[in-house]
Amino acid sequence: MKYNFNYYNPTKIYFGEGSISNLEVELKNYGSNILLAFGGGSIKRIGLYDKVIDILQKAGKKVVLFGGIMPNPTYNKLLEGVRLVNENKIDLILAVGGGSVIDLAKGVSASAYTTNAWEKYWIEGKPVDSQVVPVASILTMVGTGSEMNGGSVITNEEAKLKKGHVFEAKVYPKFSILDPTYTYSVPQYQMLSGIFDIMSHLMEQYFSGTDENVSDYLIEGLLKSVISSTKKAIINPQDYEARSNLMWASTLALNTLVGMSKTQDWEVHSIEHQLGAYTDCAHGMGLAAISIPYYKHIYRYGLAKFARFAREVWYIDETNKTEEELALAGIEALSNFIKDSHMVTRLRDLGATKEMLPLIANSCDIETSGYKILTKEEILSILEECY
Amino acid sequence: MKYNFNYYNPTKIYFGEGSISNLEVELKNYGSNILLAFGGGSIKRIGLYDKVIDILQKAGKKVVLFGGIMPNPTYNKLLEGVRLVNENKIDLILAVGGGSVIDLAKGVSASAYTTNAWEKYWIEGKPVDSQVVPVASILTMVGTGSEMNGGSVITNEEAKLKKGHVFEAKVYPKFSILDPTYTYSVPQYQMLSGIFDIMSHLMEQYFSGTDENVSDYLIEGLLKSVISSTKKAIINPQDYEARSNLMWASTLALNTLVGMSKTQDWEVHSIEHQLGAYTDCAHGMGLAAISIPYYKHIYRYGLAKFARFAREVWYIDETNKTEEELALAGIEALSNFIKDSHMVTRLRDLGATKEMLPLIANSCDIETSGYKILTKEEILSILEECY
Repeated sequence: MKYNFNYYNPTKIYFGEGSISNLEVELKNYGSNILLAFGGGSIKRIGLYDKVIDILQKAGKKVVLFGGIMPNPTYNKLLEGVRLVNENKIDLILAVGGGSVIDLAKGVSASAYTTNAWEKYWIEGKPVDSQVVPVASILTMVGTGSEMNGGSVITNEEAKLKKGHVFEAKVYPKFSILDPTYTYSVPQYQMLSGIFDIMSHLMEQYFSGTDENVSDYLIEGLLKSVISSTKKAIINPQDYEARSNLMWASTLALNTLVGMSKTQDWEVHSIEHQLGAYTDCAHGMGLAAISIPYYKHIYRYGLAKFARFAREVWYIDETNKTEEELALAGIEALSNFIKDSHMVTRLRDLGATKEMLPLIANSCDIETSGYKILTKEEILSILEECY
Repeated sequence: MKYNFNYYNPTKIYFGEGSISNLEVELKNYGSNILLAFGGGSIKRIGLYDKVIDILQKAGKKVVLFGGIMPNPTYNKLLEGVRLVNENKIDLILAVGGGSVIDLAKGVSASAYTTNAWEKYWIEGKPVDSQVVPVASILTMVGTGSEMNGGSVITNEEAKLKKGHVFEAKVYPKFSILDPTYTYSVPQYQMLSGIFDIMSHLMEQYFSGTDENVSDYLIEGLLKSVISSTKKAIINPQDYEARSNLMWASTLALNTLVGMSKTQDWEVHSIEHQLGAYTDCAHGMGLAAISIPYYKHIYRYGLAKFARFAREVWYIDETNKTEEELALAGIEALSNFIKDSHMVTRLRDLGATKEMLPLIANSCDIETSGYKILTKEEILSILEECY
């Protein structure tokens, strides 16, 4: 570790089957007006919607519904939330769903008592200088890590921009309820998308820097745990141990812990965000498709780290291999994992057209401490390789 | 992960060289009466005492000195702190030093406004039901992890008992300043003692359970990081990267994170606590001496985990080895690491006499979810093996 850092993460986690039993006690800490943020019908299908409504009503809360939050939540939807908060003097935003719902809830929280939030946060990256509305979450899909951080990725449809902002700790969920059984019924395609999102979060923090850093060892451990549990979850989606390992690894991958004192990359995410702005594709699947040509493009600039990745994460025997051969074998192992898990490898399977590729490449906003800063031409060539 | 858990750790960490610059701003959150808790002269030797006094005075604080806190802090010393808190209406206890100073500060915090604290916390393990005094820390020695948890190990000299209690989050340090350069001048013997304390914290959480658990992967990563940085810190105590990795790994080893959803062991610590009560030895050195005979005694009951330890932490080639041979090779590697680092392997070198051994064995308080619950006879035989 070379670089100074501050770490502060005050989100309370209630983890495990039945951990919703903690909701009742937590609700006592908040006023009576609750904005219930959710997406489509999945939380109704698994009975969670009725359960949460029941707990809220028994706790004497007034519930304001804020449903229909879409997978890539939009700024217009955020403004709808802001209106509901203001009209109903909301005391707590309870987000029930996956990362999109929680991301939007945080966006609403920080935008409720200010103006021009899009410019202030997502364009200019400014801190919050107004009152926020407390957020809490009940997680039903894993991948984004939104349940224990300040991240909020919002799509501005008019501007054709999908941008992330990281809010400070006062916008983090006050508490998050993580019950792995809620993820059992997530369709396999979405489960795999979430899993590659976790892996990408880990790799984008890992593939940067030349210092020796505790965080890299933690990332290797999390990657190995995710790889092991993914295989089990594909075979049996109701494997509690596997689903709970994936859920907790997902939280830890992006609760800022493993990024401490790390320079970081995030180019794959930057490219995917614009792919998502144009195609509305499943985020993790976009990351999976982009990652292999991306890493093949940049590995030479961080050769020692890619060799370490091969050795430590994929257990590749280094005997009789050059450092470059070892590095390439690691990327190959990642590629095989993507294919064996039936993740997406082609942008055409994500709704992209050939015509979109230059538009995506040109709209990418590359700010990185990764091993290689890509030019627009390089981004286009990577997109073409995985088209 | 099989078991439900709650995770909540609200300690703010300011990490890195010069991170004391954050003290001034933090002090604004507290009243004017500060109890400055510290040990002997080491913080004066490195100039930290003068620096802290200067910052406190410039911030307009009234400083009450509470020095002379000993390596195994006693309950009588705790009561001295309680008197100072009451006499001076203390608003913040600022602990400057290693784990002993911070452990004692937390003990004072929770005991200030109650009676019979020894019985209540350390004997009966009850929660705090009275007001606490906020604690903060500036760390100068690594090992205990006390800077980001609720642990407080106190020695009752009259009762010849050294016992740990884990306080709830409201007693955790509100903030901790971790500057690795403060640890440069720690004598090598103390540095190594702290390092084995870290390793023992990790191993005592690791060697339990048969489930697959994210936490075990994190522990393996932390152990590998500690092993790698120890070798560098022995060669050059002013290797900033190595000392900062050790410092952060130490915090993470016992801030409750890597114990999530884990059954745990802690028998080595239980035995060492009584060794410490009789000899006042360096805690980590006691752990180092006890660990090898202990693990040789119990490995058969957790064979798969010990084999994994050999493979993952020590990179031992499993080809042509039975699981038992692999497990033993892992313990052997740990033993070699202890010897090569010149840690202590014999209780006689820690001030123990042959006559003490039965007294230590009989006074151990074994409560464990480890692989094997030791009888008093087994503890005595382990103590004799490393005498």
